[in-house]
Amino acid sequence: MKTLSAILTGASALAFATFALAQDDVPPLATLSPPPIPDDNRMTPEKIALGEQLFWDGRLSGNGSMPCSACHLPDAGWGTGSPISFGYPGTQHWRNSQTILNSAYYNKGFWEGSVTSLESQAKGAAGGAVAGNGDGSMMEMRLRFVPDYVRDFKKVFGTEWPQVAHAWDAIAAYERTIVTDASKVPFDRYLAGEESAMTESAVRGMEIFNGEAGCISCHNGALVSDQRFYNIGVPPAAEFSEDPLYQITLRWELYQKGVPEDVYRNGDNDLGLYHVTKQPKDKGKFRTPSLRELRWTEPYMHNGALSDLADVVAFYNGGGGEGQTAGLQPLGLNEAQQADLVAFLEALSMDEPLLLDEPELPETATWSEFQQ
Amino acid sequence: MKTLSAILTGASALAFATFALAQDDVPPLATLSPPPIPDDNRMTPEKIALGEQLFWDGRLSGNGSMPCSACHLPDAGWGTGSPISFGYPGTQHWRNSQTILNSAYYNKGFWEGSVTSLESQAKGAAGGAVAGNGDGSMMEMRLRFVPDYVRDFKKVFGTEWPQVAHAWDAIAAYERTIVTDASKVPFDRYLAGEESAMTESAVRGMEIFNGEAGCISCHNGALVSDQRFYNIGVPPAAEFSEDPLYQITLRWELYQKGVPEDVYRNGDNDLGLYHVTKQPKDKGKFRTPSLRELRWTEPYMHNGALSDLADVVAFYNGGGGEGQTAGLQPLGLNEAQQADLVAFLEALSMDEPLLLDEPELPETATWSEFQQ
Repeated sequence: MKTLSAILTGASALAFATFALAQDDVPPLATLSPPPIPDDNRMTPEKIALGEQLFWDGRLSGNGSMPCSACHLPDAGWGTGSPISFGYPGTQHWRNSQTILNSAYYNKGFWEGSVTSLESQAKGAAGGAVAGNGDGSMMEMRLRFVPDYVRDFKKVFGTEWPQVAHAWDAIAAYERTIVTDASKVPFDRYLAGEESAMTESAVRGMEIFNGEAGCISCHNGALVSDQRFYNIGVPPAAEFSEDPLYQITLRWELYQKGVPEDVYRNGDNDLGLYHVTKQPKDKGKFRTPSLRELRWTEPYMHNGALSDLADVVAFYNGGGGEGQTAGLQPLGLNEAQQADLVAFLEALSMDEPLLLDEPELPETATWSEFQQ
Repeated sequence: MKTLSAILTGASALAFATFALAQDDVPPLATLSPPPIPDDNRMTPEKIALGEQLFWDGRLSGNGSMPCSACHLPDAGWGTGSPISFGYPGTQHWRNSQTILNSAYYNKGFWEGSVTSLESQAKGAAGGAVAGNGDGSMMEMRLRFVPDYVRDFKKVFGTEWPQVAHAWDAIAAYERTIVTDASKVPFDRYLAGEESAMTESAVRGMEIFNGEAGCISCHNGALVSDQRFYNIGVPPAAEFSEDPLYQITLRWELYQKGVPEDVYRNGDNDLGLYHVTKQPKDKGKFRTPSLRELRWTEPYMHNGALSDLADVVAFYNGGGGEGQTAGLQPLGLNEAQQADLVAFLEALSMDEPLLLDEPELPETATWSEFQQ
């Protein structure tokens, strides 16, 4: 992995030394290596191509019209684009659809880290009552009646018929291709020695990020995330109090997770990591998101409460939100410094969004094909 | 229970004696007693009223819009009215929605008898991927956010919050009120001694039913059903071969039931009781339906393949359909006799359909109510 220290000789040694000193207990920012690939789900072009189709295929949902792409659209930064995701008909989600850009690098999925692989994330989302609401065997049966899928699952997984568990494998393989291309990222080019790749403002912002503002404390390493959980006091989403279905869905989630009744009856805001641990100290904690590809993934925070990067920087500059337990302090950055920080955050994204077209989906067998 | 023998002295003794002699090994036709009520689900007006609302409430489904009444509409004879039910979005059902008229009297539910109570039928339909596709705890959470339901479930079941298992109890209680009123049925009035209640044609039809045609062999007792299973060779539904989703859904059902792969891969028609028993001899067998309220429950047969009573009588007159294993023989009835049989079948229904209005449904709590 190419790290900051590895390129010190080719860049501004003084600037790097300054923040390296200030935060030398955390991994420095770095260029992403290829994402880790699980031993039991190796990548092949055929598997990725199959996963691409399945990602867009509503057959993998209860009502046949809620594919993965319903909440993870390329032209919405691979999220929904709205502050809060819409949820399955009859429910209303209460969180922002997290982008799947670079999800390959996370060691756990969902904002509360409740799954530990992309494979289980796909299964959970397709089957969960708030998202896909699909019955596993019904989804599988729909796949088995698509001749192209029968052929492709056999080719990729060696089974006589498509198995829904393999669908999650294929989708996860596809998602592992939806990652940053370092050659298109100003920050990564700068790290590689191309000094003009970042603006002067962005370079100053990087110093603030690593030094005075201390962003690097949590947003570190190649992913620009420590993958830990913090409560930074994000305010409730404005739209949360508009439709009672939000509340129903949130409390259902808590109920599903097995929290005590007094908690889900009074849990009028998202309790985050607490859903998983049931430890009161974890209420309101969410996993540190990567800051890569931020330009394309607005709005921000687990509930989309902040609409642009200037708002995010201003939020931290004020010391976080009410009730935060992360130990944030007001940063005291002036407007120029905040603008520099925004410039650096923008430099962590590719110059163009990663847009992929919707693939053509295979047809269900015709009646006469059934009879063969 | 008032039976034919009990009223022999008050009616045409000769006519009754004739068919009683011919079929004295089966229970004679009779007037229905009040339906059996399970010890663990007693009837109260409050429970019935609650069940009435829940029967029409889409909250008890996956997408919030598939209540019991979606497939059991009063003005469609408490079925769907179409030959084949429509199924949950993304699926296509392969059977006629059986009427719930007098379902209180059956000792098992669904055409294949796969459940043994109305309570479990309601649960199975609301949760099944082909019908309601509801997640139990999500349905329950929706109920818990309806103040009127919280109040009413507490009143009826004594629980602090609505429990979805109690919803099935309430719906079953309501369904036990959707039964024949003997005072409105020509046949029952005739049995009670009102000789003019049935036309002469219907009286002749009754004799044919009990004698020459032998309908009474299977359609007997007060329910006019022996609740056993037969394969009478009903032809496939015409619309079955129009949409591949029918086939997907049928095979999913077989797959769910755990039949061997070669069976569900080649099961291009409804295998009925075989779904439950997996015994090859049971393929194509369906439970004898009641003939009560037949006037209001067209079309007929498990797949709605016969659209009127004349067709049904003609079907039996021809000795049933291809592949039948019920031992049916051609009846050799002439047209007048067939018309008499139809007249009698019509006399087994109330003079008017049992129409009940959709109740007003309670509202989900407002946002401010959540905060209290």
